[in-house]
Amino acid sequence: MQVLILGGDGYLGWPTAMHFAAAGHNVLAVDNYARRNLARATRSEPLIDNPNLHDRCELYRAQTNHGIEVRIGDCADYRFLAAIAAEFQPQVIVHYAEQPSAPYSMIDFEAARFTLNNNLNTTFNVLWAMLEHAPDCHLIKLGTMGEYGTPNIDIEEGWLEIEHRGRKDKFLFPRQAGSLYHTTKVLDTDLIWFYVRTYGLRVTDLMQGPVYGLITDQSRLDPGLYPNFHYDDIFGTVLNRFLVQAVAGVPLTVYGEGGQTRGYLNLIDTLQCIELAASSPPGKGELRIFNQFTETFSVLELADRVKDAGRDIGLDVAIKRIDNPRKEMEQHYYNPSFTGLKQLGLKSHLLTEDVLVGMLSEIMRHKDKVDIRKIMPRVAWRQN
Amino acid sequence: MQVLILGGDGYLGWPTAMHFAAAGHNVLAVDNYARRNLARATRSEPLIDNPNLHDRCELYRAQTNHGIEVRIGDCADYRFLAAIAAEFQPQVIVHYAEQPSAPYSMIDFEAARFTLNNNLNTTFNVLWAMLEHAPDCHLIKLGTMGEYGTPNIDIEEGWLEIEHRGRKDKFLFPRQAGSLYHTTKVLDTDLIWFYVRTYGLRVTDLMQGPVYGLITDQSRLDPGLYPNFHYDDIFGTVLNRFLVQAVAGVPLTVYGEGGQTRGYLNLIDTLQCIELAASSPPGKGELRIFNQFTETFSVLELADRVKDAGRDIGLDVAIKRIDNPRKEMEQHYYNPSFTGLKQLGLKSHLLTEDVLVGMLSEIMRHKDKVDIRKIMPRVAWRQN
Repeated sequence: MQVLILGGDGYLGWPTAMHFAAAGHNVLAVDNYARRNLARATRSEPLIDNPNLHDRCELYRAQTNHGIEVRIGDCADYRFLAAIAAEFQPQVIVHYAEQPSAPYSMIDFEAARFTLNNNLNTTFNVLWAMLEHAPDCHLIKLGTMGEYGTPNIDIEEGWLEIEHRGRKDKFLFPRQAGSLYHTTKVLDTDLIWFYVRTYGLRVTDLMQGPVYGLITDQSRLDPGLYPNFHYDDIFGTVLNRFLVQAVAGVPLTVYGEGGQTRGYLNLIDTLQCIELAASSPPGKGELRIFNQFTETFSVLELADRVKDAGRDIGLDVAIKRIDNPRKEMEQHYYNPSFTGLKQLGLKSHLLTEDVLVGMLSEIMRHKDKVDIRKIMPRVAWRQN
Repeated sequence: MQVLILGGDGYLGWPTAMHFAAAGHNVLAVDNYARRNLARATRSEPLIDNPNLHDRCELYRAQTNHGIEVRIGDCADYRFLAAIAAEFQPQVIVHYAEQPSAPYSMIDFEAARFTLNNNLNTTFNVLWAMLEHAPDCHLIKLGTMGEYGTPNIDIEEGWLEIEHRGRKDKFLFPRQAGSLYHTTKVLDTDLIWFYVRTYGLRVTDLMQGPVYGLITDQSRLDPGLYPNFHYDDIFGTVLNRFLVQAVAGVPLTVYGEGGQTRGYLNLIDTLQCIELAASSPPGKGELRIFNQFTETFSVLELADRVKDAGRDIGLDVAIKRIDNPRKEMEQHYYNPSFTGLKQLGLKSHLLTEDVLVGMLSEIMRHKDKVDIRKIMPRVAWRQN
C-alpha cells in the first residue's frame, strides 16, 4: 500500500513509519519539525537526542533495507500537502500532524492560536487533499480519549443512540474536553464528520489514551531509531514522566488528589491499532470511531506501580502530591468502552511489572541526561 | 452601556447598532467589509445600494442625533480587536463578524478555508480579548439553528440531559450541520464552551433561524439606513429571495420537495432578542443558549404564503421546484423548543399577510434594480 504518514517525525509518527515500512508498504513520512521547535523553545527537549528525519531513515535503511521517503514541510500549507497527495496517491493517510501538548496549548494567546490554527487547518487540508486528489483513500486520524472529558455516563465508542421524549436518533458521543489542545481534536471530529457525510470520504478516527514506552520491534535495532521520549511537564505523557522521575531520584509529581482516571496503552499497541485499522478500512461515507487504550488507571495507581517496580530494581521512589495546575476533576466516574479494536484482533500488551522494569532499565542507561528542571509544572490552566 | 458590535455593517449588525444607539447606549460598530467584498466577487450585490458604514452613521446622526462610532478592520487580527477591547471597555459585545453564507462556504477550497479561518479566528480572538481586557463583559454570540441540523428528536435550547445505562449527565445538544458555514458555528460553540467553563466568561449563544425583513424603527427613517438586502442564492435568505422573485415575476425556486422546515423570525424580533439578552446577562462561567425564531415553516409553505400575498396586490406568482443544490433532508421531523426568549419577554411579530404585503410593496419600489441572474442556485453541495 501507499502509506502517507503526516507528523512522521513524532513520538507516534516515526515508529508508525518504520512499522509500515517493515511490513513492506511504500511509506512517505512528512513533518515540519514543529514539535521539535516547540520543545526547544519551551526547554522541553527529549531525554535522548533524535537524529533528523532524513538521518533516521538512512539509519533504518542501513539496518533493515527498508526505505522510507521523507518530505519536510507544513501540512497546514495546502499547496504543499495537495501536491504530495496528487503525486504519492496515498491509499492510507495516517494523520498525526498536530500540536500534541495540552499544557502547551494553555500557555498564552500565541500558543493557543498556533494550536488552533495548526491543528484545524491541517485536518481541513487533509480532507481537501483527499477530496481533490485521493477520494478513495482511507484517512486514519488520531483523536484522543480526552475529547470525551470525564462524563458521568459510560463512554461509548464515538457514537451514542439517544432516546428523548419517545423518539430516537444517533449522534456523535458528547464531547467536552479539558484543554484547548483536546478541544481542537473535538473540532477536528466535527469537521471530519461534516466532510465524511457530505462527500462520502472514508475515515477512522481513533480516540487514543496516553501512550507510554519507547521500544518497538523496529526502534530496538538502534538507539538512533528511538522515538522522541519526552519526560517534561509539557510534552511528556504522565507515565513516561513518572519513569524518568523515578530514575532521577525525584518524587513522582501527582497532580492534586491523583484520582484522575484515563485509558492508557503501550506504544507497540498503538502500532497494532493503526495497522489493524489500515488493513480493514471503513466504507465510503463512514466515520468509524474506535476508543484506543488497553486498560485504565488513576494517576495515583500509575505512581504506585512505578514505585513498586522501582523498588524491585533498587530505586527508592517517593510520591508527592502537588497543586494541580490543570482544571480537571480529581475524582470522577470513568467507564469507557473498548471493543472495536479488540474485535479487529488487537492483542493487548498490558502494563506489567516486567514492562515497567524494562522501561526503567532502559531509562537508567540515559540517567545522566535527565534535566530535573523540566519536571515541575510550568503551565497553569487558571488565570489569576 | 458600552456596546461593541462586531460585523456592524451586516444585515443584522447595522440594525443592531442603530437599535442600541436609539436606546441611548454608547455603540462602536466594527467591520472589515468582508461580506460586501464577497458579495461583489460573487456578483451577489444587494437590492439597494448601502452607503458605507461611516456614511450610514452620519446619516443616522443627522436623522436622530444619535452617534455610532465606527472602526474599519479585521476582527480575525488579534492586535486590532484587542486594542479596541482595551480602549472601548465593552460591557456587551454582539458578535456577528462571520462569513454568513452556507452556499459561499461550499464553493471551493478557498471559500471554505476563508470561512473556517475567518469565523473560528474571530470567535477565538473575541474570547481572548475578553480574557485579557474585559473579563466581566457579556458576549452575545450569533449562532444558528442550523447547528442542530434536523435530528429525529425534539430540539432543546442548547443543552440536553442524557440518561444512559442508568446514569445521567447534561451536555451540549448534539450538533450536526448541513454546510461548512453552519459547521463553523458548531465549532464556535465548542470553543466558546471550553473558554467559558475554564475561565468563567459569560456568554449568550443565540441559535437563530433565517431572518426576513428590512424595515425597523430606525431603518424606516431613510432608505439610506436600510440593512443590506440580499436576494441572491448565496447571501439572500430564503424568504427575502422569494419576495424579490415574486416582484420580479420569476417563479419562486423551491429546492427539491420543499419540505425542509426551519424556524424563522422577523428582523425586528432579532433586535428585540439581542436587547433582551443584553439587559439580563448570564452569570460568570455560564454559557446561556437560546433558540431564536418565532415560528416554523416548510420552504413550500413559505412559497405558498408569498404567492397568496402577491395575489392580493396583483402579482401572479408561480412556484417552481428545482433540483436541490444542497445536501439536506427534504422531509424530516422538526420540533425545536422556543421558550427562553419568551420568558425574557419577547413579543413575537409573526409572518402575517400584512407583513408579507408590506415587504412586497417596499420591494416593488426597487423593482427596476432586480437582477434575475442572481436568483438561480450557482453552488452545489455535491462534487460530481
